[in-house]
Amino acid sequence: MSDQPQPVVRPAPISGFPEWLPHVRLVELRWLDGIRAAFERYGFCSIRTPAAERLEVLLAKGETSGEVYTLGRAQDPDKGQGTDKGQGSDEGQLGLHFDLTVPFARYAAQHFNELVFPFKRYQIQNVWRGERPQDGRFREFTQCDIDVINLDEVPIHFDAELPRIVHEVLTSLDLPPWTINVNNRKVLQGFYEGLGIAEPLDVLRAVDKIDKLGVDGVASLLADRLDQAQVKSVLELAQLRGGVEDVRALGVRSPLLDEGLQELDFVLRELSDLPEVVADFSIARGLDYYTGTVYEGKFVDWPEYGSICSGGRYEDLAGSFIRRRLPGVGMSIGFSRIFAKVLSAGLLDTGPSTPADILVVLPKDRRPTATSTARALRDRGFNVELYHQEDKVAKQLRYASRKGIPFVWFPPFEDDRPHEVKDLATGEQTATDPTTWSRGRD
Amino acid sequence: MSDQPQPVVRPAPISGFPEWLPHVRLVELRWLDGIRAAFERYGFCSIRTPAAERLEVLLAKGETSGEVYTLGRAQDPDKGQGTDKGQGSDEGQLGLHFDLTVPFARYAAQHFNELVFPFKRYQIQNVWRGERPQDGRFREFTQCDIDVINLDEVPIHFDAELPRIVHEVLTSLDLPPWTINVNNRKVLQGFYEGLGIAEPLDVLRAVDKIDKLGVDGVASLLADRLDQAQVKSVLELAQLRGGVEDVRALGVRSPLLDEGLQELDFVLRELSDLPEVVADFSIARGLDYYTGTVYEGKFVDWPEYGSICSGGRYEDLAGSFIRRRLPGVGMSIGFSRIFAKVLSAGLLDTGPSTPADILVVLPKDRRPTATSTARALRDRGFNVELYHQEDKVAKQLRYASRKGIPFVWFPPFEDDRPHEVKDLATGEQTATDPTTWSRGRD
Repeated sequence: MSDQPQPVVRPAPISGFPEWLPHVRLVELRWLDGIRAAFERYGFCSIRTPAAERLEVLLAKGETSGEVYTLGRAQDPDKGQGTDKGQGSDEGQLGLHFDLTVPFARYAAQHFNELVFPFKRYQIQNVWRGERPQDGRFREFTQCDIDVINLDEVPIHFDAELPRIVHEVLTSLDLPPWTINVNNRKVLQGFYEGLGIAEPLDVLRAVDKIDKLGVDGVASLLADRLDQAQVKSVLELAQLRGGVEDVRALGVRSPLLDEGLQELDFVLRELSDLPEVVADFSIARGLDYYTGTVYEGKFVDWPEYGSICSGGRYEDLAGSFIRRRLPGVGMSIGFSRIFAKVLSAGLLDTGPSTPADILVVLPKDRRPTATSTARALRDRGFNVELYHQEDKVAKQLRYASRKGIPFVWFPPFEDDRPHEVKDLATGEQTATDPTTWSRGRD
Repeated sequence: MSDQPQPVVRPAPISGFPEWLPHVRLVELRWLDGIRAAFERYGFCSIRTPAAERLEVLLAKGETSGEVYTLGRAQDPDKGQGTDKGQGSDEGQLGLHFDLTVPFARYAAQHFNELVFPFKRYQIQNVWRGERPQDGRFREFTQCDIDVINLDEVPIHFDAELPRIVHEVLTSLDLPPWTINVNNRKVLQGFYEGLGIAEPLDVLRAVDKIDKLGVDGVASLLADRLDQAQVKSVLELAQLRGGVEDVRALGVRSPLLDEGLQELDFVLRELSDLPEVVADFSIARGLDYYTGTVYEGKFVDWPEYGSICSGGRYEDLAGSFIRRRLPGVGMSIGFSRIFAKVLSAGLLDTGPSTPADILVVLPKDRRPTATSTARALRDRGFNVELYHQEDKVAKQLRYASRKGIPFVWFPPFEDDRPHEVKDLATGEQTATDPTTWSRGRD
């Protein structure tokens, strides 16, 4: 140790850029695998877009640029730092994508002629936002997005299919209680029109803040714009818990409301077997983007934590990039937000720090036997570590136990003796055979 | 269409940042799955580090900074662009990692007390380099790294295990012919010492260029430093194709050479069942980092394309970050290099553009039957698309065919009729049952 030079940099985490120890990472991978499997089970295909896009692409829809990380170069601190223009590129300034919607829009436009529509894609990638980290907000985080886009029109079928898939995902993750709340923008806007409100979007804007301001807060926002009866009806709808018939029972009528209720009715009926999917007439999910069905998932016990998934139906994905109207329906799962919350709440079911099922002991002077044993078990699909040197058996066992490897395998220490396997959970050790053994407990 | 606004940005690829169409992405995912499975089959655990590290971490080992992308912010072009110091962070300048070794070293140092040693990790992530893109070189690319590190000493066991794992990976990818070339730095250096060469590292530096300069080029590099007999012996070793005994037959002796040959002998013996693993006494893999076994994988038919995997044994991973010596052995698979080459050579075996096994037809007025059929098939593990609207059957079939979905399923169009399934490859259509059907052909 004394000849070891002094370290030059103290290793430390960067706030907002999470990383996990191996036993947590193993669960994260299992979650991601489950999500991907669910998406594929419904026939959605994976795409992956580069981490970077041209800045003009990232900002094409009018997003504010404050959260965008731009790419620069370190070598020349005096000039041009922060831009990549010097590198002989004609791409202009590059930035890291801050969501997966903008890259998807650019992808769909760029590859338009090579895609089969309706195009059903999922995308599981990290995104980056240069915002101040806080509870549930990171600067690097994983999103799991699923969208269907089509030429000119998207069947209502998908408005019901997407929340079913996300429901399947969330169910598989073994989370504390959650709901997926569904609404339809046409219901809100049509209801306000039916009340004779001239500027329904202003009202929508106010109602969208009900989570933050409360009912009274929204009421006072509306007071100078609507008459008392209108305010009462608007708030009645926002607080309604029930179904399509309960909205109709409020007695308001308009063509747009009828259309919205019909769409919502289809979605709720298709999902009536899923108790976690509920109608919620208060959610609007922003104002300009979504035009029909909207979704928002939440933890029941942590409503203030914000949404764990969200999405909706939109009129045009990629108008900034192509002269073809591409409407769609999409949902996004806030993977890192969910994972970090469950982890910090102590609810993550972590286990071993290795994917190994079995540690094969390396006995003295019997490496070939141990090697062929490990290989036979790997060929049968097990994840197998062969111990790395001829240490005492007690030390080899301790290694397995510290890593959480569930089984320790003893190849014969002498010829004509049987194999034995020890279950570290029960301590039980039994004679066995590498060509027939199974975990049993599973 | 006429009401569609003019697009504001033309979508275009960014050179050096590859992205794939769905049918290519599907193969990429299959490859990545296979690599991960091989790593886990040997008990290596996954870690994931953030895309960004502090610049002082990235440059701690003395790397030149020219290729590092730094993170800046777009919002304020007049001051501070290219740095993230303004954002109330105390982390200083951040940059995207350009390999997975530096982040692994920082990770090992930072989490040192929470890791079990020997620590066996794999890491499959993208890395970024701001270099000019060329054949086989990207600005964003995927590396698959596998390393074992330990306190103070790493068993020779792993020098043989790592190329076996990588061999398993490369075999699974169905590539054109390749080899994994193995050498040991001690063999080269010890051989030069045995020849009485005073500055063996200078010779090593010259021999390392044999790929670029050829035998004659290296000979003239060495001529002013060594006598003719030494040059002859040095080149004899570099061109030797054979094993440890062939080196011994050259008649040179030194303690370091003996040590190196003994290590190399162990590795080659352990891998003697793998014909693609060959000794190659010309490779040194750089000069300062590796100290024993070294590896380099190449395509047989594209030697000029450069290495497809590489690695070796090193004395100290994380000395820049921690006052503990952590020697190790590691290999890195140049995933994107391999994938892009096989793709551009027309050798990638692509198929459908969707993971769906089956398209379930949606007959007129029979949505519940179709839905429950799709669900039953999904429950049995198939990836199933339910067609999205009540189109003509011919249109639904055309959709399956365009996406490459291999089977089309017809739920009963009337009560008391059987299910039928059509194999689009053969055209054969048969009566069947969703609870018992199997693909058969597989």
